[in-house]
Amino acid sequence: MANVFNFSAGPAMMPKAVLEQAQQELLNWQGQGTSVMEVSHRGKLFMELIAQSQADFRKLYNIPENYQVLFLQGGARGQFAAIPMNLLRENGKALYLNSGHWSATAAKEARSFGEIDEINILEAGDELKVKSLDFSDIAEQYDYVHYCPNETISGVEIFDVPNVGNAVLVGDLSSTILSRKIDISKFGLIYAGAQKNLGPAGITIVIVRDDLIGKARKATPSIWNYETQKNSDSMINTPPTFAWYLCALVFKHLLSIGGLPEIEQRNLAKAKLLYDYLDGSDFYQNNVAKANRSLMNVTFTTGNDELNAKFVAEATAAGLQALKGHKVLGGMRASIYNAMPIEGVQALIQFMQKFAKENA
Amino acid sequence: MANVFNFSAGPAMMPKAVLEQAQQELLNWQGQGTSVMEVSHRGKLFMELIAQSQADFRKLYNIPENYQVLFLQGGARGQFAAIPMNLLRENGKALYLNSGHWSATAAKEARSFGEIDEINILEAGDELKVKSLDFSDIAEQYDYVHYCPNETISGVEIFDVPNVGNAVLVGDLSSTILSRKIDISKFGLIYAGAQKNLGPAGITIVIVRDDLIGKARKATPSIWNYETQKNSDSMINTPPTFAWYLCALVFKHLLSIGGLPEIEQRNLAKAKLLYDYLDGSDFYQNNVAKANRSLMNVTFTTGNDELNAKFVAEATAAGLQALKGHKVLGGMRASIYNAMPIEGVQALIQFMQKFAKENA
Repeated sequence: MANVFNFSAGPAMMPKAVLEQAQQELLNWQGQGTSVMEVSHRGKLFMELIAQSQADFRKLYNIPENYQVLFLQGGARGQFAAIPMNLLRENGKALYLNSGHWSATAAKEARSFGEIDEINILEAGDELKVKSLDFSDIAEQYDYVHYCPNETISGVEIFDVPNVGNAVLVGDLSSTILSRKIDISKFGLIYAGAQKNLGPAGITIVIVRDDLIGKARKATPSIWNYETQKNSDSMINTPPTFAWYLCALVFKHLLSIGGLPEIEQRNLAKAKLLYDYLDGSDFYQNNVAKANRSLMNVTFTTGNDELNAKFVAEATAAGLQALKGHKVLGGMRASIYNAMPIEGVQALIQFMQKFAKENA
Repeated sequence: MANVFNFSAGPAMMPKAVLEQAQQELLNWQGQGTSVMEVSHRGKLFMELIAQSQADFRKLYNIPENYQVLFLQGGARGQFAAIPMNLLRENGKALYLNSGHWSATAAKEARSFGEIDEINILEAGDELKVKSLDFSDIAEQYDYVHYCPNETISGVEIFDVPNVGNAVLVGDLSSTILSRKIDISKFGLIYAGAQKNLGPAGITIVIVRDDLIGKARKATPSIWNYETQKNSDSMINTPPTFAWYLCALVFKHLLSIGGLPEIEQRNLAKAKLLYDYLDGSDFYQNNVAKANRSLMNVTFTTGNDELNAKFVAEATAAGLQALKGHKVLGGMRASIYNAMPIEGVQALIQFMQKFAKENA
């Protein structure tokens, strides 16, 4: 199975070196004669693993000391509920910035827990373009302002952090976390499902500023109460130990290749290669404004549903997997997360050239 | 690392055949050239896997047609919150039967979501013994009655299903699920974290009767709304795909060795061996009434903290791992879930004999 490249939007490709290590020690972790998934989360060796994973993640992402990093269950969608439960005051309200499917879905879920205002931040028109993001005049009336800097489905990325003055900014970074440098101190809370850049599905990272912890409403499940989890090393219940272990291996791997500066350079190079090809092509179109083109999810279409289906089928047969666009949008989508090597993008472009020639 | 036996209470031992298969195909699942944890949960192959896992689990546990099986995130402790959110009516109340640590913890969490009555079902005295469980006269005033048939920490198991008349019975079967035959039709809802008998930590099974679905309060997180998850094949968000895959392998494995009748026989034989030895020993004590001795978690003590610590240390050195009792109770605990072979129990008894002789 040489030359398979997996463009899945998530669960996504993982670093091969990580999977190889996991495979090698799957039945015998740390010389114990048992799998890492068979040991107590409160045992010495696993506690060491989580302490190291915390330290590595904080180093990688340059997390200030006044932020806690929690490893939780329930996915980003779990946090869609947990965030208002933890941050929305009685009779308070929150502002959700709508840039596409996921930010809209987060707002919809939050409405079950309190009053939510919503602002569409996309310009009118066929091109997907994000408006100016200065909300400093209105933000402070809200308990928090929520946005999603990378919309996985449409391939829209917001590179500038919205200006919310002294208000609390909350970001769903599921599909952009650890892909480029970011100033954590501009956020009150960041959350991300693991299954794009962190590890396998089933574990969720929450980075939360100390002053936002301890304000949860009574009816907050203990597994999502940030104070409870902070005080329990994210172990108020049994954590997803194998997923956490894989995240720890991914962090080590990312540090070993040079950390965020190197990862960001690689991601910029991969995305540039693909967008440059798209811009030079008459056959494929991408409808995202240059300033908002996602480094992680590159959407494109031939403009013809039948041809798109043919593209996906032939690409799959050529070992270029999971290029079908999300069902709400159609077309194609190449997710090129951290673990995708530039060779994968090169192989995709080669295939696109060939396909364009044969079907023009 | 021959002859290592892992008595961890959870995350617990998994069948070796399952881990070996997972290891073998970790980087190349179904000949796709990718890991099962790298593929879309909505892809054809993964959807086939979950359909098969549903069918296998239903067959193994003899689940009636009018019950749904959901695969969720958040652990049993997540369900401590989800259950009242889904089942407790406005101004309704629930009854929790307290038989030890976990049933008490479930009640405590439920109080955040509504009115909870609690009844201690242990007899007074030093021996742990469960009272008669006929609540048919009072149960129907409650939206549901909750109990925990196996208390992992103390090693108390309740073999008779409580009589609640026509009321809804809810059971936390985390540490007894699939260990012996049970009449599902007596329950309204059964839930269980995976990390004892089903698979790795990070996935939770909920078996819920159809008529109890669709009654969740508004402020129920969508990932725990039984109706939402029923309508989404337990995929309203990205499920913990690798954990689900491992559960699917465990179900196949359990069917291959003869299903529940065979598993139950093996578990009865393992537990009998260990309890018979304890009963014949003057050196070790177990304080659970014979009628309530857990098939899964066998607690014992020398009656001396220092000697207990020595026991655990020497047992560990001899390859008998994780025998330390839960911190709230002390002493020793041997968890002998489905995956523990009888050879592990035999090796433990041999060690116990030797230790008793040397330290009497």
